[in-house]
Amino acid sequence: MKKPQTVGIRELAAHLGMAISTVSRAMNDRSEVSPETRKRILAEAERLGYRPNQSGRSLRSGATKAIALTMRTDIGRTMSGETFFMALSEGLQSTLANVGYDLMILPCASDQDENEFLYRAVDRRLADGFIISNVQRIDPRIDYLRKWHMPFVALGSSETKGDYAALDLDFAGVAETSVQRLASRGHKRILLGLTAQETNNNYIFLAGFKAGLEKAGLAFDERLVLRLHDRISGGYELASKLLAMDDRPTAVLLIQETMAMGLYQRLGEGGLQPGKDLAVIGFRENPVCRYLTPSLTSFRIDLKHYGARLGEMIIAELDAATKVTGRSDFVHEVWPMELVPGKSDAPA
Amino acid sequence: MKKPQTVGIRELAAHLGMAISTVSRAMNDRSEVSPETRKRILAEAERLGYRPNQSGRSLRSGATKAIALTMRTDIGRTMSGETFFMALSEGLQSTLANVGYDLMILPCASDQDENEFLYRAVDRRLADGFIISNVQRIDPRIDYLRKWHMPFVALGSSETKGDYAALDLDFAGVAETSVQRLASRGHKRILLGLTAQETNNNYIFLAGFKAGLEKAGLAFDERLVLRLHDRISGGYELASKLLAMDDRPTAVLLIQETMAMGLYQRLGEGGLQPGKDLAVIGFRENPVCRYLTPSLTSFRIDLKHYGARLGEMIIAELDAATKVTGRSDFVHEVWPMELVPGKSDAPA
Repeated sequence: MKKPQTVGIRELAAHLGMAISTVSRAMNDRSEVSPETRKRILAEAERLGYRPNQSGRSLRSGATKAIALTMRTDIGRTMSGETFFMALSEGLQSTLANVGYDLMILPCASDQDENEFLYRAVDRRLADGFIISNVQRIDPRIDYLRKWHMPFVALGSSETKGDYAALDLDFAGVAETSVQRLASRGHKRILLGLTAQETNNNYIFLAGFKAGLEKAGLAFDERLVLRLHDRISGGYELASKLLAMDDRPTAVLLIQETMAMGLYQRLGEGGLQPGKDLAVIGFRENPVCRYLTPSLTSFRIDLKHYGARLGEMIIAELDAATKVTGRSDFVHEVWPMELVPGKSDAPA
Repeated sequence: MKKPQTVGIRELAAHLGMAISTVSRAMNDRSEVSPETRKRILAEAERLGYRPNQSGRSLRSGATKAIALTMRTDIGRTMSGETFFMALSEGLQSTLANVGYDLMILPCASDQDENEFLYRAVDRRLADGFIISNVQRIDPRIDYLRKWHMPFVALGSSETKGDYAALDLDFAGVAETSVQRLASRGHKRILLGLTAQETNNNYIFLAGFKAGLEKAGLAFDERLVLRLHDRISGGYELASKLLAMDDRPTAVLLIQETMAMGLYQRLGEGGLQPGKDLAVIGFRENPVCRYLTPSLTSFRIDLKHYGARLGEMIIAELDAATKVTGRSDFVHEVWPMELVPGKSDAPA
């Protein structure tokens, strides 16, 4: 992380004509400071680029020695049986604990604005560093974290500009490989199931899908891209739409594997057999999907290892931010996933 | 919470012959204090019953305004698709946010000792209050939280003595109702699937199971109680054992519903049909199990509502601990669950 010119609490207090202790109290959200005064102090702090997480630290009780991971509780991944964050946390928490840091997951409920939720956590300095998930194509949280010089890693790529560390799974590679695999098995009409959200991985997955089609010499058809709830019911909905199509696709690629559970059920109700009547590939090998029959072709990632790497990355960001000479390389890593062939994607 | 006689930081410092600032630094885990000195201070603090989370608060940067919920990342509930904590957090986080509190989930990895993990979080005052899950029959974390006068709620009952707030699902009632239902459908040999852990709900579920048998006039047979991994594979294992039994049970009651996924698969491999050849009842209605065929008979709980209640309870504990006149009623609530009949428990 590049070192900005640091404005200290002394300068800030001098600009405001206030005592340092008042500014400190306002920064620490203490009740002795009136809301009006606090507002004025925060506005001036922002204008001057004051960094409370550094300069204010010595006036606080010390660093929190904690890393916060934000997650939504209402996205499909969590509602359809959360196995991603749990397995990730295994490796992440261990790695952080080894260097004396705690991991705290900050769950954001569906009635909360995800951006405001993060801003508030940053303002309150709940942790020394943040990991944001559910990354959007344009994600204002990234700008906010950068503005306040809070060390962070984006768990997911984004189109948001600027230097920052990011770790992501190879959505493009999975989509491209899947399409090529299906095409090599004779499939020409492949349906793509995306989620209805603005998460960046939707766009990356679509790009990989198109790249795969091009390599296979197949034309892209916008009508074969469906956006659904990223949960079990989304797969059910997708199957209903597919069954109603005149020129029915012979294969489906899902960005979210738990959709396969609803898809299988709806196909069964329509008298079709997954694997036999429709080829299906899901995204991630997921224990929740392990008991589907026929077994779902998907892609493997060692989430414990992935979580451990995430821990290393946020620690590197902290180091860069706290050492005077420190600077980050803003690593952007994309982890490949390994094909695990199942019996769900037979030739057309 | 009963008000103990309060030993302040002044008294503690006087006892030690040290400056208040030194004691404060030690309590806040600051590096300026040597480990030896810190150890000595903490020992004396413990001896005198000093309460850093109250007395020390004014010397710290203020309350954290956060509630910590501890959870293991390696238990079956989480590994087999976590839907419990996610749905619970929905209601819990909203309720806490309404009164200005943040919720942080502290995930404990499998290579960590769950007790030490909690002690460390309490020592570091990561939050103003704690919610502990995965409650054990005898749970030393409860003693620790009480000793340090940390406001908390046990999410689960325990045999550990003392006054404290606890919230639990009606494990006994579910087991008793299930057995009576199965008995009324002609089942006489009912297998009970418990988990291999020392969680208290295993004991409560077993007690309810026995009560149900007694009411139905059936004898309890120790050989029909199996202890398994509380995850999908545990159900697979249970079915394998069941298939190998000479005098095969005609019904199974599971303390953890995701076990049903492995059970269904193994039965299928053995040429048996759940519902037809073996009656199955799972514990909680779980979205992950929703797509099982035949549909699993289980019990419903509104987890968002349950989580909201948990939020109210921890807030009441905080109030009791921080107001001079405050005292807690140490509410112990057990929430009933509603039977959701499926097609998995046909008559024998």
